[in-house]
Amino acid sequence: MLFFRSRGLTVGWLLSGRACQGGDMTNEAACHELLGLLNRIHRLESISGFLGWDEQVNLPPDSADKRAEEHSVLAETIHTTATNPRLGELLSTLEHSSTKLTVDQATVAKDARRNYDRATKLPAEFVREKAIQSSVGYHAWAKARAASDFASYAPVLEKNIAMAKQEAAYLGWGDRPYDYMIDKHDPGMSAAVINKLFTALKTELVPLVRQITGSSVKARTDILQGFPVGDQLKFLREVTEKLGFNYRRGRIDVSLHPFCSGSGGDIRMTTRFNVNEPLDSLFSSIHETGHGLYEQGLPLEHHATALGQAAGMGVHESQSRLWENQVARSRPFWKFFEPRFRETFASQTAAVTSDELYLAINAVAPTLIRVDADEVTYNLHVILRFEIEQQLFAGTLQVADLPSAWNHLAGEMLGMIPTKDSEGVLQDVHWSDGAFGYFPSYCIGNMMAAQLWYRALELRPALTDDFAQGDFTWLLKWLQENVHAEGKRFDVLALTKKVTGHELSPKALLRYLRERYLPLYCS
Amino acid sequence: MLFFRSRGLTVGWLLSGRACQGGDMTNEAACHELLGLLNRIHRLESISGFLGWDEQVNLPPDSADKRAEEHSVLAETIHTTATNPRLGELLSTLEHSSTKLTVDQATVAKDARRNYDRATKLPAEFVREKAIQSSVGYHAWAKARAASDFASYAPVLEKNIAMAKQEAAYLGWGDRPYDYMIDKHDPGMSAAVINKLFTALKTELVPLVRQITGSSVKARTDILQGFPVGDQLKFLREVTEKLGFNYRRGRIDVSLHPFCSGSGGDIRMTTRFNVNEPLDSLFSSIHETGHGLYEQGLPLEHHATALGQAAGMGVHESQSRLWENQVARSRPFWKFFEPRFRETFASQTAAVTSDELYLAINAVAPTLIRVDADEVTYNLHVILRFEIEQQLFAGTLQVADLPSAWNHLAGEMLGMIPTKDSEGVLQDVHWSDGAFGYFPSYCIGNMMAAQLWYRALELRPALTDDFAQGDFTWLLKWLQENVHAEGKRFDVLALTKKVTGHELSPKALLRYLRERYLPLYCS
Repeated sequence: MLFFRSRGLTVGWLLSGRACQGGDMTNEAACHELLGLLNRIHRLESISGFLGWDEQVNLPPDSADKRAEEHSVLAETIHTTATNPRLGELLSTLEHSSTKLTVDQATVAKDARRNYDRATKLPAEFVREKAIQSSVGYHAWAKARAASDFASYAPVLEKNIAMAKQEAAYLGWGDRPYDYMIDKHDPGMSAAVINKLFTALKTELVPLVRQITGSSVKARTDILQGFPVGDQLKFLREVTEKLGFNYRRGRIDVSLHPFCSGSGGDIRMTTRFNVNEPLDSLFSSIHETGHGLYEQGLPLEHHATALGQAAGMGVHESQSRLWENQVARSRPFWKFFEPRFRETFASQTAAVTSDELYLAINAVAPTLIRVDADEVTYNLHVILRFEIEQQLFAGTLQVADLPSAWNHLAGEMLGMIPTKDSEGVLQDVHWSDGAFGYFPSYCIGNMMAAQLWYRALELRPALTDDFAQGDFTWLLKWLQENVHAEGKRFDVLALTKKVTGHELSPKALLRYLRERYLPLYCS
Repeated sequence: MLFFRSRGLTVGWLLSGRACQGGDMTNEAACHELLGLLNRIHRLESISGFLGWDEQVNLPPDSADKRAEEHSVLAETIHTTATNPRLGELLSTLEHSSTKLTVDQATVAKDARRNYDRATKLPAEFVREKAIQSSVGYHAWAKARAASDFASYAPVLEKNIAMAKQEAAYLGWGDRPYDYMIDKHDPGMSAAVINKLFTALKTELVPLVRQITGSSVKARTDILQGFPVGDQLKFLREVTEKLGFNYRRGRIDVSLHPFCSGSGGDIRMTTRFNVNEPLDSLFSSIHETGHGLYEQGLPLEHHATALGQAAGMGVHESQSRLWENQVARSRPFWKFFEPRFRETFASQTAAVTSDELYLAINAVAPTLIRVDADEVTYNLHVILRFEIEQQLFAGTLQVADLPSAWNHLAGEMLGMIPTKDSEGVLQDVHWSDGAFGYFPSYCIGNMMAAQLWYRALELRPALTDDFAQGDFTWLLKWLQENVHAEGKRFDVLALTKKVTGHELSPKALLRYLRERYLPLYCS
């Protein structure tokens, strides 16, 4: 059968005009027209993201050329749509209105302006060069990492930093290029704020990590062997559904590296399976579920505008970390799920005690590799990268001196020094793509997650009792109403203050890490 | 991990300018510019088809609204691209050239003109109304079929016929609207030609079917029970790979109804599984593989133009039918695959003899339902629909009289009369979508397949010996070189003549059906 019918004709049925209602009539009309254009951009970007998902999950090995052509044509279409001069006119109308915009109108316009400037202020030649450099950078990095040969990668990195500074200048951030890179991922955040937070965190975290890793108590993860993939999938589906993920608007598949893509209308998560590492697929799935729950909690009718989009990477990570760590690595969670885990994997868990299992779930072990790190030491990996990025952009560190700076910091913070650059400065792909200022979000997310956690406990002391009953509805509802429903109305700093009553700070994270890990390792 | 990098920057690397080379320099330049525009359309349509594949294979149940929005925005983008006035200017330049176009240039321009006219000559209001009617029609049909209530569906059908005639008129086919509908699916074909072919086929096929179905020999398909899905998939993968399908540029998944989508750069086929009907998934997969092999055989560098696209539905079906029927239902094919089948399904086939298995593979049983029909009677289902469509468009049959006309023809041809319209005139979705003139392609494909088959046997008498050795390379190569490589250079009539040396006719099909089925049922 080749017959294939397509049905369409539904433009805008997920698009609510409520964002525009109220205030001046001219503003309302401009906002409505803006909404139509933003919806078009959003849908095209959503298709583009979906092609990316398929690329990681389904694409036949030799079909990358075809997909690249599609990406390319779609990128051009998106660019044309996102730089439509009419967008600029409508934004001007709203920005120069003699009457005040409603809060929602202002939120929509501010974010649309941000995106419009980013789409229009970069010269086409620069965008083209950046795209080439992205491809060149990736291959240079992959080759350098394989050979642990930093020198061959250094020129690429120098060019990427220069281009990042150039990009910042085009957007009007010439004097603060690193802040621009940070703001790209976490609107409202700056290097100065992060520096203060990270310095405070580092001071207490380094000794805490030493205390835990110096303990004679060692987690054993090798006690979990021979977990069939089908059963792992069944169990993680049960867990993630219980947490509240709506599989009627999402799915989970397999890819090389776990990720979460799509938006609340259709979330595509992935995980990976290893029969001897059941906790890896389980916790990576819960992590992605945290991202997915956030996206599913954003108001569907506003997905095309800032009112229905994530506040930034830091807030996004706070959601994934909260569900993964504070919730799913806790005793009450396992009080409910351990019997189910043992039922599903009876023979594999027969010789494993509850304490051994719980310790494996909360294993802490120093490693040189960020992606292998546990939740305690992970923060140190992030701080290390932030300190280096900050110096690189300030010009106080030269690319040529990167390996020694890296190794020095690794020794200081992780207590380990890489013997080769592939285990040090060459381990991450991010910089090869010019993605600077991205790492801090992970740690910002950890801090916010801990603050959300203690606030939730204050409001509902019985929360952990709920968990022990397999009931996660209160927490999800609270997050939906207080974090998700706001979209981009608040940045990460304002949102943390609003929801928890406290400024963003490392205190809650440190408290949480002590409460979780000291009894396990140092009691 | 949410980090997601995209790489692009490869426009046109699958696009060859060879289509344009030669002849007048002005023509060559116009052709090159045309190619760029056609490539853009092709890629966007390819994305649209890919969204459709995902919809059938992966889409979460509640995400249809999001997908509909994406389809809609993409359809608008494609429309804008396909109606770009520059396309019309370039076509004019080529069409009014004082020097002769090369064969390739002419092929490209002719097909581009056909598509451009279809994109530009229909008023926007008409296109919108048709899209609404498509959705209305589908739901009316589904409801009517469920209730076997033709009367409620009749007005929809009347409107669909009126709109089809209107569409034909817009495109300049006002005096031959049914020919227009046929030409949509099979360029170069007409009702008069089909009528002659089908009348000749029917005259001999009706008694042949009576002879076979009147036999005391009856195939038993219920002897094949309890075939695990995983093993079925393994076996059909082995078979389809042996036939030559390139899984490095394609994949097979599961959907409600089997289909083949995508193009040679990335073919997405589907099948369905029933543990008690292993031959259903196997043969539907081989059928779709036939479609896939055709698409994979079309020259990749020309996918954006007529030089790299299928000649029409009839030729497409000839490829799927040839592999499914002439090849895969043959004794030599099973000489090679039966031991493998028995190895994979040892317990399930232990009590089944080779003759029983081969008869089940070539089961013939009259049925009222087209999609359940075997390859012998299938042609009668098609002829019935063609005769009715022809009368509907000629005005010699009124919609109100359709059920009785249908039942009369069913009795005459199939020897069975539906007791309710859901088993008769309401069984197919096609007309609800205005897809008239589509059915004949199936039978045209059967005729062409048989002609290709005997021509191949003439050229390589050892062909069936190859099959018995599991070697299908000669046939595929011959098809690639003689059918696939031509793209749309020839229509189905000219291509058949060129490749087989004979005009398209029912003779070979009748010969093949007799040679295959009479020994089995009437010896």
